Amino acid sequence: MNDQYYMKFALSLARSVSGQTSPNPPVGAVVVKNGQIIGFGAHLKAGEPHAEVHALQMAGDKAKHATIYVTLEPCSHHGKTPPCADLILQKGLSRVVVATVDPNEKVAGQGIKRLRESGVQVDVGILKEEADSINKAFFYYIQHHKPFVTLKSATSLDGKLATVSGESQWITGEEARQDAHLYRHTHDAILVGVNTVLKDNPTLTARLPLGGKNPVRVVLDTHLRTPLQSNIITKKDAETLIITGSEARQDTIAGYEQFAHVEVIQLDQPEITIPRVLEELGKRKIMTLFVEGGAEVNGSFLKEKAVQQVITYIAPTIIGGRGAPTSIGGDGIESLSDSLDLSITSFERIGKDLKIVAEAKNHDEG
Amino acid sequence: MNDQYYMKFALSLARSVSGQTSPNPPVGAVVVKNGQIIGFGAHLKAGEPHAEVHALQMAGDKAKHATIYVTLEPCSHHGKTPPCADLILQKGLSRVVVATVDPNEKVAGQGIKRLRESGVQVDVGILKEEADSINKAFFYYIQHHKPFVTLKSATSLDGKLATVSGESQWITGEEARQDAHLYRHTHDAILVGVNTVLKDNPTLTARLPLGGKNPVRVVLDTHLRTPLQSNIITKKDAETLIITGSEARQDTIAGYEQFAHVEVIQLDQPEITIPRVLEELGKRKIMTLFVEGGAEVNGSFLKEKAVQQVITYIAPTIIGGRGAPTSIGGDGIESLSDSLDLSITSFERIGKDLKIVAEAKNHDEG
Repeated sequence: MNDQYYMKFALSLARSVSGQTSPNPPVGAVVVKNGQIIGFGAHLKAGEPHAEVHALQMAGDKAKHATIYVTLEPCSHHGKTPPCADLILQKGLSRVVVATVDPNEKVAGQGIKRLRESGVQVDVGILKEEADSINKAFFYYIQHHKPFVTLKSATSLDGKLATVSGESQWITGEEARQDAHLYRHTHDAILVGVNTVLKDNPTLTARLPLGGKNPVRVVLDTHLRTPLQSNIITKKDAETLIITGSEARQDTIAGYEQFAHVEVIQLDQPEITIPRVLEELGKRKIMTLFVEGGAEVNGSFLKEKAVQQVITYIAPTIIGGRGAPTSIGGDGIESLSDSLDLSITSFERIGKDLKIVAEAKNHDEG
Repeated sequence: MNDQYYMKFALSLARSVSGQTSPNPPVGAVVVKNGQIIGFGAHLKAGEPHAEVHALQMAGDKAKHATIYVTLEPCSHHGKTPPCADLILQKGLSRVVVATVDPNEKVAGQGIKRLRESGVQVDVGILKEEADSINKAFFYYIQHHKPFVTLKSATSLDGKLATVSGESQWITGEEARQDAHLYRHTHDAILVGVNTVLKDNPTLTARLPLGGKNPVRVVLDTHLRTPLQSNIITKKDAETLIITGSEARQDTIAGYEQFAHVEVIQLDQPEITIPRVLEELGKRKIMTLFVEGGAEVNGSFLKEKAVQQVITYIAPTIIGGRGAPTSIGGDGIESLSDSLDLSITSFERIGKDLKIVAEAKNHDEG
């Protein structure tokens, strides 16, 4: 066994809770002594114990002189729980292996420093790239104070979202649609435009066989056209945030807010702009945003280059038609040099369809 | 070793000459005796010896009582070369293993029958699926007397062929464009619409580092607008077929035909229709056709469902814009049930891009 082996296990623990820890990052920890795993854990939910606490609890007295593998630097500050660096010292561990440093300004190397100053051996950077990938949304949020945006689309092989007459259900298969529901579960919020609400009356919940966490439902609705009888208002399974412009009427707003799970955010400008939307969502600790279009809303995100990740499901079918809608609308660009460049991080078959995951080349510009 | 092992080798030999044997199929043959390979060969070019001839030549006198593995049933008729079944008998082989039966009506089981009647053990169907896949274009041509059509497109992740202003060079990377040139080499003909000639003035040759075979260049040009100074007329590296309607003027046609490598096919109807085009190309023994658009020509092929295979290169970039052109134009369909259903046969990364190969579900309906 080597450090990579145990860290891989810790990373798999972190991955398993991805999406349920927001606004905290998913973290895994493994305690090892004499080549045996004597404890492991993960941070399950914000406000609850950190990964190290669970792992050290399992290890009990054996933790003395052991090594702990953590996917993210142990915290050194008093948050909702006491600092993990203190716990590690108190339990008498002799070595700490860290995949990546926590960029959160309350930690940012302080946890590592504290441990080293107390004589604990700390090794940093084991499987860092993998850890950074698991933490990418959290790191983005910490740096930009706005959500990491994933844009989802499902099209035919020739890029069509629907036929010329608008028929779109269903281009992709059951397995791909199920896979997309998994992303609803792992995201803090899901966003659509009011036209999607009017056309499809979606519920926007994570409908998974064994249940899941529903994302906050966000609707961009400049003129407050969301019907009071639409599913996102009548179905109370999740919170609904309606973002509207400064010209929306107060009595209309009051109509929505009689529902406890509905909140209307009125911007101080007549038009809804994506940067303002992201700022508002960031303030509400929404770390990850899943954008499910339609085409014009997707086009607005693209125009602002406010997209960090794109998930595309491609069905092996050709729809054709110069007038058939595509996944990203808006006015478009003149020059190819203005396009949003991504890199493909993974691709796989999902049922009959293909799924492509691509990431924006420079998150930091987002 | 087993039959699969030797047949796999024979199939790899067939695959290596795919595209250079038209209008014959690519075939490989391996001769084995006492578990040793004593000869192998492939059919290199129409009019030249068949795979069995090369393989038996290499085996020499050792061929007696040996086994020959062939990817396609040995022929039994006198074509440009004598029947291979006779040669196998003459050389005294005791067993013939065939991957798949030749559907060509001049063969169609006759080769196998003749061998069996002469006391040779013949086993048929070893790795049949793989052999059928290598022979798919040949089989399609034999059955339908028209070319197997592969439609190629290269788009952004959101399905755009160009920006709203028409900029399209280059969306995909160098590696993907090189890969597409390989398909030009392996196809008998390449087809574009006259608008592509007017807009891009392409050469339509297979520009590969170590050279390659150029396909016949086919242009759909109802009103004979192809300029006499365009690359497909002035560059004599390949034949050019211009297909035009019945209203084209005879003196204009004569202008093109002063070039020895250019032929004008005038249809007996004012408009060019895809079924008539395929019929004409079939008559000229064009077995495989590579359609490189543009969008409207692609749309015409789709409308007739005259597409057997689709090669799509997808670049990890987002162009956006509701008015940006997509790969398949035309009037499009109203109902999803009228879309062309395919199945994905393979997908892979080519440089920064993704390549998806998909096949029409029912070739026979094409």
